[in-house]
Amino acid sequence: MAKQLLPAALSALIDELGRLPGVGARTAERYAYYVLKSEPRLGEQLAKSIEKVHSQVKQCPVTFALIDADDDVSNLYSDPDRDKTIIAVVEEPLDIVAIERTGNYNGTYHVLGGAISPIDGVGPEQLHIPELLERIATDSVKELIIATNASVEGESTALFLQRFINEKGIDVAMTRLARGIPVGVDLEYADQITLSHALEGRRSL
Amino acid sequence: MAKQLLPAALSALIDELGRLPGVGARTAERYAYYVLKSEPRLGEQLAKSIEKVHSQVKQCPVTFALIDADDDVSNLYSDPDRDKTIIAVVEEPLDIVAIERTGNYNGTYHVLGGAISPIDGVGPEQLHIPELLERIATDSVKELIIATNASVEGESTALFLQRFINEKGIDVAMTRLARGIPVGVDLEYADQITLSHALEGRRSL
Repeated sequence: MAKQLLPAALSALIDELGRLPGVGARTAERYAYYVLKSEPRLGEQLAKSIEKVHSQVKQCPVTFALIDADDDVSNLYSDPDRDKTIIAVVEEPLDIVAIERTGNYNGTYHVLGGAISPIDGVGPEQLHIPELLERIATDSVKELIIATNASVEGESTALFLQRFINEKGIDVAMTRLARGIPVGVDLEYADQITLSHALEGRRSL
Repeated sequence: MAKQLLPAALSALIDELGRLPGVGARTAERYAYYVLKSEPRLGEQLAKSIEKVHSQVKQCPVTFALIDADDDVSNLYSDPDRDKTIIAVVEEPLDIVAIERTGNYNGTYHVLGGAISPIDGVGPEQLHIPELLERIATDSVKELIIATNASVEGESTALFLQRFINEKGIDVAMTRLARGIPVGVDLEYADQITLSHALEGRRSL
């Protein structure tokens, strides 16, 4: 009923915006109204950017990072200053951005394209694991940093990779990101699993 | 720095989406990545909707509600079943949707186009007040329900309207939406201003 209250074009835009992840009806209304109230030029730019993003972005065939359609491989891989013998294995392309923001990592990346999740029908065969094994051989990789999320799916994927690579008898060191108390969180508010991890991973001073 | 890590087209989309109200960098990244991962058709539809919204939506010249570009006046005004002698005065067009959702109102609407806010440089002369006075005369309006927001700006606007219309000697009843405890909120969590309003506005059982 609320739909007929608004002009058809505005209702259509609200519906489209409501498909974005985590956007409910009210938020979609606010976004749509903002687009309507802004200068037409801003809306045109947004529309153009949306249309361009599919044609001008592709996956790197080696690391599966997102790259410009004109590029051959990710510059985080082709850069001669980056250590190709260390690979951080992540679930999604944006995880690379998060790690790069630390300014503290000089290896390369490999995007799995998700995490193992039987509920969502994602098994190991949907992930870029064969390509990872190829890179380990080609680049004489010494260390895999398994940087999957700290979720059930991320942990399962890390465990699977560890077993799979060990069973294949591939000689590569495997590490995981440290689990512990995040900066700025009081002990009393830390959940017990995080606190257990922090205890297990304690370091000498 | 994080910008150069992503393809230019994706960075551009993240920047554009980051202009939406309340959207920070992380949220914009999630939205942009969602658009990229969805089928191109969905992105095209969204882009088209954004482009259409400016050309196919206009303001009703009487009520300032949003209407289809082909329509002459809002159908909430032209509808013969709606009582034109009662006007709910709201700040923004989407406020109409909120009131219509109650299914409990059969009058018409008048959108002021904002609220008086000296900080933002919005004075009474920017609001659709002359058009409201005209409607009061033309439609022999009996009641104005001042339904501005419960914010400082909304309250100032309500007060201004009340004084202005009284000073002009216009004969129309003016009411405000009731202030009180919202449904589902425990007394102990209600703020003291709301609680004061609820006390003042108490009703006999």
